[in-house]
Amino acid sequence: MIYLDNSATSYPKPKEVYEAYKNAIKYYHSNPGRGGYENSIATSEKIYETRLKAAAFFGEEKEENVIFTPSCTFAVNMVMKGVLNPGDHVLISDLEHNAVVRVLEHLRRYNSIKYDTFSVDFYDDIKTLQSLKNAFTAQTKLVFCTHASNVLGVCLPIRKIGMLCKQNGVILAVDGAQSAGIIPIHMKNDHIDYLCLAPHKGLFAPMGTGMLIGDALRLKTVIEGGTGSQSRSFLQPDYLPDKHESGTQNTGGIIAMSAGIDWIQKTGIEKIYRADTAHIKALWQALKDEAHIQTYVNIEKLHQFAPVFSFNIKNMPSEMIAQMLAKQGICVRAGLHCAPLAHQKIGTLDRGTVRISSSFFTTNNDINYTISNIKNLLLNF
Amino acid sequence: MIYLDNSATSYPKPKEVYEAYKNAIKYYHSNPGRGGYENSIATSEKIYETRLKAAAFFGEEKEENVIFTPSCTFAVNMVMKGVLNPGDHVLISDLEHNAVVRVLEHLRRYNSIKYDTFSVDFYDDIKTLQSLKNAFTAQTKLVFCTHASNVLGVCLPIRKIGMLCKQNGVILAVDGAQSAGIIPIHMKNDHIDYLCLAPHKGLFAPMGTGMLIGDALRLKTVIEGGTGSQSRSFLQPDYLPDKHESGTQNTGGIIAMSAGIDWIQKTGIEKIYRADTAHIKALWQALKDEAHIQTYVNIEKLHQFAPVFSFNIKNMPSEMIAQMLAKQGICVRAGLHCAPLAHQKIGTLDRGTVRISSSFFTTNNDINYTISNIKNLLLNF
Repeated sequence: MIYLDNSATSYPKPKEVYEAYKNAIKYYHSNPGRGGYENSIATSEKIYETRLKAAAFFGEEKEENVIFTPSCTFAVNMVMKGVLNPGDHVLISDLEHNAVVRVLEHLRRYNSIKYDTFSVDFYDDIKTLQSLKNAFTAQTKLVFCTHASNVLGVCLPIRKIGMLCKQNGVILAVDGAQSAGIIPIHMKNDHIDYLCLAPHKGLFAPMGTGMLIGDALRLKTVIEGGTGSQSRSFLQPDYLPDKHESGTQNTGGIIAMSAGIDWIQKTGIEKIYRADTAHIKALWQALKDEAHIQTYVNIEKLHQFAPVFSFNIKNMPSEMIAQMLAKQGICVRAGLHCAPLAHQKIGTLDRGTVRISSSFFTTNNDINYTISNIKNLLLNF
Repeated sequence: MIYLDNSATSYPKPKEVYEAYKNAIKYYHSNPGRGGYENSIATSEKIYETRLKAAAFFGEEKEENVIFTPSCTFAVNMVMKGVLNPGDHVLISDLEHNAVVRVLEHLRRYNSIKYDTFSVDFYDDIKTLQSLKNAFTAQTKLVFCTHASNVLGVCLPIRKIGMLCKQNGVILAVDGAQSAGIIPIHMKNDHIDYLCLAPHKGLFAPMGTGMLIGDALRLKTVIEGGTGSQSRSFLQPDYLPDKHESGTQNTGGIIAMSAGIDWIQKTGIEKIYRADTAHIKALWQALKDEAHIQTYVNIEKLHQFAPVFSFNIKNMPSEMIAQMLAKQGICVRAGLHCAPLAHQKIGTLDRGTVRISSSFFTTNNDINYTISNIKNLLLNF
């Protein structure tokens, strides 16, 4: 099997992650923060250690500003529902995932939130910034944008967007689902207020993990419940991370995430980026000039991108292409990838695209085999 | 180490659960419902299989009425926020966990929800039902009660409460965190509308798992986002389970839960109940007549209870007792156990209790060793 769906979730994970996951349920098996005995304390310490590592990895000064969530989607909901009040206006890019759009659409219908999109120019950051600038209104409270499109790999200039938001007194939240662990993100230097993460992708954590990084104390809660702290009070604790971590956490997932971050630190994020994107470049180089292949981004003109490659073959439905590749043992994803906005932008809302997403563990052979199988499909024309 | 904190999370798990957990991340490693290739489909099937098993286990006719959540706390939030509108009135028992109370207190402050408690009589169900009946108002929309107290083990007569709710056109939601997997629960026969579960306890799943069972289609969403379905739409799918399962699920946890349910079915829930409660009976028998020991429930007078035993020693702080037992390798939990209401009821809001909670894997030796260590502490008086 050649797994090229790392944008959905990464596979394989580093062996240290498998080890940590397997061991967590056996050796850090107690509910953290709930008991005073040795194993509960040891489990709490492991969770705290992961919080420290995540804070350091993303340039966040306060470890309590790292909130563990069940998913990136949950983190996005926390930001939107925590920050916004009726009448507020939000700006999102025209590449956002449904994790962003569906929350906003819900808030528009039921909480009188307004939102608009700004246009991302794939090759010209100045145009992107100008589009954002033009979209600001007096009610704009929040800019929410992805760091990298999950359909196209295209990166947004988050640092420049962060500066612009800062100048305008607007909160910036970034969806780092596709970039974290592959492209450096720094809370302070990039002027990010809230960073939403899917650690089961680039951080090599298991599925069922998520993080929100940022000053979550000023966010209203999405869920309330027991925290193992201030138990006498009927109110949520008013400190972090407890305010936003009600209920029992996914300790196995969090502890495995810790091993994933260690592995990235050890390997070096620049090395990971080079390996990941080299595969996408090779795919693009091999396929871009084929008569019946349609690509959507000129990768050579990008100075940075996430390892995602979308294409189509003539009039073939994207699902059919993916099915034919699946028969050859190649795992790629077809359709809209939960991001209709991006497809609207590139004109593929009807048919979607075939998406190939590589990882550090993808080999040249994987890519060459995939290229030759795609070229075989072209022989039908 | 003698682990007697199974009410916080169960340990050990059956070996089949460890196996399933370890294998899930390796062999069912793809994002379910997101890809058309073999491994994604295989992972989806495993998740669906677990849904079927959970539905059958809890007497739920429709498998799509099983919603996987990150925690029982999340499931409680889903019910409360999904069902209630401003002006609605809720009745809860006076034994509820903060997972219930904190959500309601939040809704009381910010969404004009009213709530009151009804009084549980440990030994007389008729008195409990009378208290509930007396508390109904014209605005009562929801009764939310635990099946078994996490502090005292005392069970509520949920079937009778269910009938009463049905007669009064009131929705019944049950917190099965302490009883599921130990005491049978049947959605239909017990007249339960919504059942909130913590599978990492009695179902032997890993931490980071939860379930809501019931007709969740009529619940407003707590979070929205991508579901891998109807991706073209900016709105949540209006069918189950997709409406309430946005974002990537904890596949490893869910697949391991499946092994936990299998193990319970194979072992037999009656056998599990007998083993679990025999230990609590033994503890109670050995300690109830000790001069300096304070217990709170006459276990012999209960016809059913969850395997939880709370006690205190004279004027010793509960935390000190737990610490002294921890030094002997005995893991128990002290304090309020996130349930201030229950402690208010038994007069231990200031000091809490020491809580011992057994499981099927607790041995007679574990209990005898614990009893003799508690008796040793009494020698100080």
